[in-house]
Amino acid sequence: MGIKIGILGYGNLGRGVECAIKQNDDMELYGVFTRRDPGSVSILTKEAGVYSKDDLLKHKDNMDVLIICGGSATDLPKMTPEYAKDFNVIDSFDTHARIPEHFANVDKAAKEGGKVAMISVGWDPGMFSLNRAYANAILPEGKDYTFWGKGVSQGHSDAIRRIEGVEDARQYTIPVDKALTAVRNGENPELGTRDKHTRECFVVAKEGADKERIRQEIVTMPNYFDEYDVTVHFISKEELERDHKGIPHGGFVIRSGVSGWNKENRHIIEYSLKLDSNPEFTSSVLIAYARAAYRMNREGMSGCKTVFDVAPAYLCRESPEYMRAHML
Amino acid sequence: MGIKIGILGYGNLGRGVECAIKQNDDMELYGVFTRRDPGSVSILTKEAGVYSKDDLLKHKDNMDVLIICGGSATDLPKMTPEYAKDFNVIDSFDTHARIPEHFANVDKAAKEGGKVAMISVGWDPGMFSLNRAYANAILPEGKDYTFWGKGVSQGHSDAIRRIEGVEDARQYTIPVDKALTAVRNGENPELGTRDKHTRECFVVAKEGADKERIRQEIVTMPNYFDEYDVTVHFISKEELERDHKGIPHGGFVIRSGVSGWNKENRHIIEYSLKLDSNPEFTSSVLIAYARAAYRMNREGMSGCKTVFDVAPAYLCRESPEYMRAHML
Repeated sequence: MGIKIGILGYGNLGRGVECAIKQNDDMELYGVFTRRDPGSVSILTKEAGVYSKDDLLKHKDNMDVLIICGGSATDLPKMTPEYAKDFNVIDSFDTHARIPEHFANVDKAAKEGGKVAMISVGWDPGMFSLNRAYANAILPEGKDYTFWGKGVSQGHSDAIRRIEGVEDARQYTIPVDKALTAVRNGENPELGTRDKHTRECFVVAKEGADKERIRQEIVTMPNYFDEYDVTVHFISKEELERDHKGIPHGGFVIRSGVSGWNKENRHIIEYSLKLDSNPEFTSSVLIAYARAAYRMNREGMSGCKTVFDVAPAYLCRESPEYMRAHML
Repeated sequence: MGIKIGILGYGNLGRGVECAIKQNDDMELYGVFTRRDPGSVSILTKEAGVYSKDDLLKHKDNMDVLIICGGSATDLPKMTPEYAKDFNVIDSFDTHARIPEHFANVDKAAKEGGKVAMISVGWDPGMFSLNRAYANAILPEGKDYTFWGKGVSQGHSDAIRRIEGVEDARQYTIPVDKALTAVRNGENPELGTRDKHTRECFVVAKEGADKERIRQEIVTMPNYFDEYDVTVHFISKEELERDHKGIPHGGFVIRSGVSGWNKENRHIIEYSLKLDSNPEFTSSVLIAYARAAYRMNREGMSGCKTVFDVAPAYLCRESPEYMRAHML
């Protein structure tokens, strides 16, 4: 019997989790829980059910782990503590500044219920955080750099869509090659916002809209665009559909540090991701940590955990013996 | 008071550990233990002692972790099980094929003594293994690639030095750019030995030696060179000293995998190292795992562990609260 997974919320992330379960033969999807009318939601897995979110507790004993696929702004701060009492849960909470508060709320609930709750799982926070931690532990004297992209920023795309006269838009965040190269060469550059990333926007304007005004509103938008070099392309709805449908992303975590009695030797540790689908990759990470949550809870652990608290062996399907013989 | 470290064996690796301790303010070097006459060994740390290896047990209660800096061929298979009874130990055992046997021997001893023993710590095995494990857990359907270099291979340099007429030599292993690019592009190439790495040799010939014969002996040497494209440069002793004194190394671990209901999306996870000093970087990893061994043993754990068994938080000086607030 596989580890039985429940998915709460069936958007891009929930669908990604469903696909990831199919790739892991020690897992099975028990069901999808939705705020919508369950009859209106059609899922890919024939063997699994679709249920109302309100009925979650009725299915409590049928699931080993519940993956909460909600938004960080309002859903997760409420949902994860609520369900951590009754389920081993995983979320991808990504509001960095509010992680300590979220951790405290979830930890309390998970300990009450004797469950394991893993928060902030994904790639940033997630795999990028892990790589920052490992690299800092190994090279205590050094400098961290994180670059994002090339990838679609939903937040920036949405910001453009809110401009009057814009029908649709897609914004790509692009790391600046020159900066990346300097970091890799161990030059330890001081990099401002403008030095690290550029922003490229593909905009579908409504008929008759003033494109020059739209361009000006984009490039001067505070916080989102004004501190960056920005390129704006106006394209047709058809071009947007044809060339910009995907949700790619990725990035680079680099630590440049020194060793030696007189710090005479330099080392560069680099971790990078190039992802065709941001939500599907995030989902794949969620599923690996679902396996860990299940195993850790069976060993008697409870409380809130992050990627820092999980020994890698818990994530892997392979046995410890196999891993030592073949992966070490 | 810091974590008190003992170093057994004072070659390149032992000296690297000594330097790494200096960079970590929660650690201190208690002493170096040597097979040589302690009076003949001069170390960099003024506050620490130099003792005979034979007196190790007399110092048992003065150290928290013993780092065993010996060779994998004959030293570590004997030493690590011997000392794991009395000390928390770390080694960098790197004979991949013999890891299961080494693990079993060390595990028995460490459990008897109630100590934590970490084996095969470093970068390969070590950080490369970790990255293979994480990437496989996240992308179960995919292909792994490991490239080494550009870096000095001690084994290959030694093999050249054994050829008649060779005074000294340095061999660099170099990854083939074209192969790396194909992997990064998600082409999933099938790569033979010759496709992945080239070998470049810098040789100092003895006076009057037949260079063409030496070159032939190198390029046709079974296992070491015959399956590779090899370049041989004859240089002077002075040039070798001037240009090839360092021990750089590094490499790339890449997993190319797919996600999606129909495996329609591709993801590339890449981890790479560019190291000025192979032994010093390895030592820096050893020291991070020494911190983990100390903490895990204090929590009551014992037995043999590998990098797969260690939650990242154990490696970091920072508190869990700090890590969640600033590194996640």
